[in-house]
Amino acid sequence: MDDCKALIEKALDSYLPPEDRYPHIIFRAMRYSVLNGGKRLRPILVLTACQSVGGDISLAIPLACAVEFVHSFSLIHDDLPALDDDDFRRGKPASHKVFGEAVAILAGDALLSLAFETIARTKGVPADAVLEVCRRIAAASGAEGMVTGQVVDIESEGKKIPPETLEFMHTHKTGALIEASVVCGGLIGGANQEQLCSLSHYGKKFGLAFQITDDILDIEGDEAKTGKPVGSDLRKQKSTYPALFGLEASREMAKRAVDEAIESISGFGPEADLLRVLAHLVVDRST
Amino acid sequence: MDDCKALIEKALDSYLPPEDRYPHIIFRAMRYSVLNGGKRLRPILVLTACQSVGGDISLAIPLACAVEFVHSFSLIHDDLPALDDDDFRRGKPASHKVFGEAVAILAGDALLSLAFETIARTKGVPADAVLEVCRRIAAASGAEGMVTGQVVDIESEGKKIPPETLEFMHTHKTGALIEASVVCGGLIGGANQEQLCSLSHYGKKFGLAFQITDDILDIEGDEAKTGKPVGSDLRKQKSTYPALFGLEASREMAKRAVDEAIESISGFGPEADLLRVLAHLVVDRST
Repeated sequence: MDDCKALIEKALDSYLPPEDRYPHIIFRAMRYSVLNGGKRLRPILVLTACQSVGGDISLAIPLACAVEFVHSFSLIHDDLPALDDDDFRRGKPASHKVFGEAVAILAGDALLSLAFETIARTKGVPADAVLEVCRRIAAASGAEGMVTGQVVDIESEGKKIPPETLEFMHTHKTGALIEASVVCGGLIGGANQEQLCSLSHYGKKFGLAFQITDDILDIEGDEAKTGKPVGSDLRKQKSTYPALFGLEASREMAKRAVDEAIESISGFGPEADLLRVLAHLVVDRST
Repeated sequence: MDDCKALIEKALDSYLPPEDRYPHIIFRAMRYSVLNGGKRLRPILVLTACQSVGGDISLAIPLACAVEFVHSFSLIHDDLPALDDDDFRRGKPASHKVFGEAVAILAGDALLSLAFETIARTKGVPADAVLEVCRRIAAASGAEGMVTGQVVDIESEGKKIPPETLEFMHTHKTGALIEASVVCGGLIGGANQEQLCSLSHYGKKFGLAFQITDDILDIEGDEAKTGKPVGSDLRKQKSTYPALFGLEASREMAKRAVDEAIESISGFGPEADLLRVLAHLVVDRST
């Protein structure tokens, strides 16, 4: 896993334009938000999903970087004053606090474009598979995925929402890109239809377990580790799993989701062991 | 040309998600900014460039819509209070005035994603050509193109900039997407390397003529036709061609650019006549 992460850090650095390019501020802003010690969960999912179907993970490196670019874009825009108005991200000042709102908006835009440019640069994989990857990542990033989830999140703030709305919000806001990372990692690895279906199911359940755990960490996490103040969801009157179902039931839901994720790839061999380990780690984490 | 535009309007409508989908506001915002009576210059360039190399324009429809989605995304974000702070666009309230800043930012994001999803849905064209299109449109939309131009535009406001900076700003802010539209239309149409090179040259000169004319229309255009108040660049202390070179010299520069655009496709047959007509129209326009 550490090797995997080191590989990703190096690749992210190489796919980002250098910051001595004119006009410096935009390239500095792009690099500031991507190269910030993130968990690299989505890129790791891309690589391990590729490996799980016997694929060559080196071919999935561009996609791994692309999903991190999409993730970084979404965090920059989410933190803007007009949206979540967060001044800090992972314990460091948010992009708009460092570079101003205009450059933060544009840095997000540039990272989203860079994601598709990077996917299109994939080598050694059939072009039609890469196009399918492009289509799925675009769908997960836009109005069929993340953006829609964010809209529902904004509209729900301060309201008590039914469980269906909470689920809709999370399957779109965080779930869609996580699922797409897993499925597209499989596509790059040459997965067949049945394997893609299993990976999609794994991705959905993984995303759910991830989100519930995130909500729990907001309540009982260690601020020094999560990099965000405990209870910030509560203060913003965000709808969360613990708020709707209670802490104990939320923990049970997360564990069940992990079991279901692992069950959905039961037909896979030992190449999928890292996917299994990851599913356990996602609930047993402190950051 | 009218047939071409009608075809594009119909296709834009069909590629945009319906606005009765939940959550309505984001789909309404996306449609509001795209279906607003724009000139459709970039989609028309895509189709005519495809035709100029003997290609089937029906195969270029997804790309034609995609470049308009990218263009709409850039207008929504440019108009935001943190950027150009424009309350009106083509005589109608800007997206952020109608839907609020948060939804305007997200609608722009969603349109950018939709552009790549739409390109990836191209049928009947070799997948490697479509991937190359995806790569070029992404480069033109992001930090190698539009975004960088916008950053330089913001940094230049209220300053007297040298001609090289003005040129850098425009070749990136408007030129890159116009050139990419022409070149990628050619790629979809099956252009060879020599033709792509000619189309790239045409696109660069076309973009220059377009921008200079835009700057001139800001001074002597008819407000009722352009949809923006006369002299708004002046009031915002924007650097423009007339401000740097004077009106007469700017007009000459635009005409020369048109001649050079037409010259660069002199090797093309009558299939390229529409590209020739367009180059003349771009300086002889009132909107």
